[in-house]
Amino acid sequence: MLSATIPRMQSIHTSSIEQLIEQFQTLPGVGKRSAERFAYHILKTPTNDAMNMARAIRDVKQNIRNCNCCFNITEDDLCTICNSSKRNQRQLCVVEFPKDLFSIEKSGLYNGVYHVLLGKLSPLDHIGPERLKIAELFQRLKQNEFDEIILATNPTVEGDATSLYIIKKIKELNISTHISRLARGIPAGAEIEFASKAMLSDALSKRQGIN
Amino acid sequence: MLSATIPRMQSIHTSSIEQLIEQFQTLPGVGKRSAERFAYHILKTPTNDAMNMARAIRDVKQNIRNCNCCFNITEDDLCTICNSSKRNQRQLCVVEFPKDLFSIEKSGLYNGVYHVLLGKLSPLDHIGPERLKIAELFQRLKQNEFDEIILATNPTVEGDATSLYIIKKIKELNISTHISRLARGIPAGAEIEFASKAMLSDALSKRQGIN
Repeated sequence: MLSATIPRMQSIHTSSIEQLIEQFQTLPGVGKRSAERFAYHILKTPTNDAMNMARAIRDVKQNIRNCNCCFNITEDDLCTICNSSKRNQRQLCVVEFPKDLFSIEKSGLYNGVYHVLLGKLSPLDHIGPERLKIAELFQRLKQNEFDEIILATNPTVEGDATSLYIIKKIKELNISTHISRLARGIPAGAEIEFASKAMLSDALSKRQGIN
Repeated sequence: MLSATIPRMQSIHTSSIEQLIEQFQTLPGVGKRSAERFAYHILKTPTNDAMNMARAIRDVKQNIRNCNCCFNITEDDLCTICNSSKRNQRQLCVVEFPKDLFSIEKSGLYNGVYHVLLGKLSPLDHIGPERLKIAELFQRLKQNEFDEIILATNPTVEGDATSLYIIKKIKELNISTHISRLARGIPAGAEIEFASKAMLSDALSKRQGIN
């Protein structure tokens, strides 16, 4: 009774569902299967809840802009960090993206202010210094005095290139602020057995004396 | 220069982002970390693309309803399957949710029509037969003649209870249609070593003679 030669249907979904599945697939790490699960969930969810999600997406794009000072995300002119009197305004941490800032904030280990570059140098993607907030960084360095600049770009080729570019510029401009970079080495909790060559290279070349 | 006792900030995100993270966390299998990644992605994504996602969610809730005949999802009165002249209208497959129907459709192994119950019996969640499309199923069984009814509820306690309830009702109503259920046993590709007791119980008790 089951036929083995069934004409392939053009599509088993209605077009609205298909569009939603397609949209969910644009999210990072979300494949076809997950996107389908998300879409079926939206189907079953009360209309109000689904509308809240649609509204939250719209609100983020409509309300959020970049801080006038550090380019962190904010809904006002200045972000909560630039606005805070409790932060050390003389310590500056330079990061690539707001998400990097959030990670450092979550650690609770840093109490200075930030400068978000909104990207990293990437010649292959045609992203040069003019596409990043580097001019604005040097504007800040000229107008304010900092005790320290911590370069916290990612430990990747592009992140390193971005930091090196900034270091070179700082030296050219004769800015005498103390500059530092995040320490590199074996990550806490890792096993040396499984460490990559790049990790081991950092760990060995930057090894620290004990006595 | 790094202080160990930093007053905990109330929140490191703006409220729009926080709301979006919260919304994404309502999706199945999405935890805080994934929801954050999704939200950062929306932040970086061009406004038009993000709006398309918001619109797709809204459209699904506004355009999609249940087929008047089988309760599959559709944007018209009848779904594409009920509307198709190529489907065997005398073979009926009963499933819990539209997503089950999609899985069977994707396999390309079935060419009959469906009846979607839009749920399963679940006394703990106060879901009795009146909350499912069971009355509508019997309406169809009375008005149409079928050669076979395939009960394709999930192999779970609730799915089994739902099928048993329908079988009992069919017998009470003296409907003489041939009834079948999906075969149960070891799933293709699995290893007996890792099969659960329930799987082995099905596989053994429903073992098939070879000669």
